[in-house]
Amino acid sequence: MDRIQQSFARQGMMATLGARIDAVQPGAVTLSAPITPGTSQQQGFGHAALSFALGDTAAGYAALSVIPEGFEVVTSEIKIHLLSPAIGERLVARGRVVKPGRRLVVVTAEVFALRDGAEKQVALLTGTMVPVPV
Amino acid sequence: MDRIQQSFARQGMMATLGARIDAVQPGAVTLSAPITPGTSQQQGFGHAALSFALGDTAAGYAALSVIPEGFEVVTSEIKIHLLSPAIGERLVARGRVVKPGRRLVVVTAEVFALRDGAEKQVALLTGTMVPVPV
Amino acid sequence: MDRIQQSFARQGMMATLGARIDAVQPGAVTLSAPITPGTSQQQGFGHAALSFALGDTAAGYAALSVIPEGFEVVTSEIKIHLLSPAIGERLVARGRVVKPGRRLVVVTAEVFALRDGAEKQVALLTGTMVPVPV
Amino acid sequence: MDRIQQSFARQGMMATLGARIDAVQPGAVTLSAPITPGTSQQQGFGHAALSFALGDTAAGYAALSVIPEGFEVVTSEIKIHLLSPAIGERLVARGRVVKPGRRLVVVTAEVFALRDGAEKQVALLTGTMVPVPV
Repeated sequence: MDRIQQSFARQGMMATLGARIDAVQPGAVTLSAPITPGTSQQQGFGHAALSFALGDTAAGYAALSVIPEGFEVVTSEIKIHLLSPAIGERLVARGRVVKPGRRLVVVTAEVFALRDGAEKQVALLTGTMVPVPV
Repeated sequence: MDRIQQSFARQGMMATLGARIDAVQPGAVTLSAPITPGTSQQQGFGHAALSFALGDTAAGYAALSVIPEGFEVVTSEIKIHLLSPAIGERLVARGRVVKPGRRLVVVTAEVFALRDGAEKQVALLTGTMVPVPV
Repeated sequence: MDRIQQSFARQGMMATLGARIDAVQPGAVTLSAPITPGTSQQQGFGHAALSFALGDTAAGYAALSVIPEGFEVVTSEIKIHLLSPAIGERLVARGRVVKPGRRLVVVTAEVFALRDGAEKQVALLTGTMVPVPV
Repeated sequence: MDRIQQSFARQGMMATLGARIDAVQPGAVTLSAPITPGTSQQQGFGHAALSFALGDTAAGYAALSVIPEGFEVVTSEIKIHLLSPAIGERLVARGRVVKPGRRLVVVTAEVFALRDGAEKQVALLTGTMVPVPV
């Protein structure tokens, strides 16, 4: 938990997006951030890059939560499906490990828009994280 | 060209990232943005979400450049390979149409880090853009 | 159900691979095929293309099960993660609709190897199906 | 070259599909196979799994051509865009290394349909190959 928070705190992009860690469990991490004019696309909805940033980072920390101390993870590749416009107050991203491994960790993340208390899925990501020595 | 600049100007995320349009040709668009502490990951390099934001947007506007007036495009899905750390002063993203279509436009983008005047590729994206009525 | 079976029967590749339909529900289709020397890779395990063929086809028919008569579906793009070697007697692919739509259907599939009565996941696919008039 | 031909000869799936190696250069491999009733989809065109099998295998051997003796490669993940129907006599797949590496090799492949002597691109793949000790 500590190393996830310390790593998160060093990510300037997360501060720029106003993101925070909501929950950390072994193999599962939840992040969220507000949808603001400064993170919008041309129609005023949350930008695909906001969903990507949260989904990729939640998935990466889910991977980090299952690998030994002394390593961090970097994204090798990740694919995002945009399912619905990101309309609402906040985006919530839930990352999860699909298949742990010493050399590769396959991950997934689901991103939801929170609007008037209701959640709607806006994105689905699947990707590959690589452990690298700190 | 005009509609690309107008759409770009409405994207709050692009302003937040300090991005600009460098070139627009039919089927090919180049964007760039500085790598700053506010767009970094935990090691101080450019965040994957910065490469994603530029690559996705360059590819989207490359698609927009080949579809009729009265439409804009949204990303249906896109995959990014992170090839090298994003180290340098700026990132440059070159989007290109692979296969135009009335219902779907297949696109690609390459992202390069500019460091001391030399370019190094840091990301490769392939994705699907969908024209939607404005 | 009928149109899925009729379409399946016209796919020469499915016959070549010895594939069959195991179950059809609205939004969910299960296919399977034996792992044989004729569908192996260089180590004797099931070939990635066998997992792909089953996963892609199961996902495509899952999409077909939720779109109106008069259409069939074609794959626009699909990504496969190979999670474990395909070792066993059969592969079972379960396709599922993630997000239905008139123009695009986002799908996923999971592929499992059946070995001595136990299932192990060997692949995960996510993709985009496009309805086209018959 | 020898180890590519020896590996290829052990792939039962390649024989089932009638595939052959057309060219091997460092970092680039070309394969092809006929489009037959036994490798067709429901409209009689070449099946997506045929394009996948050739593209994935050409990309994998392109990766193998740049890694040390004593290793083979397995596909970690790969995405295929189907650009046009696979109509013609043969499919030709050209695999290429985008980014070599000791732990991961990023690859791409383009698949073309050969019809009356003319080539048309039918698929584009990007993926990740992993070297494993033989």
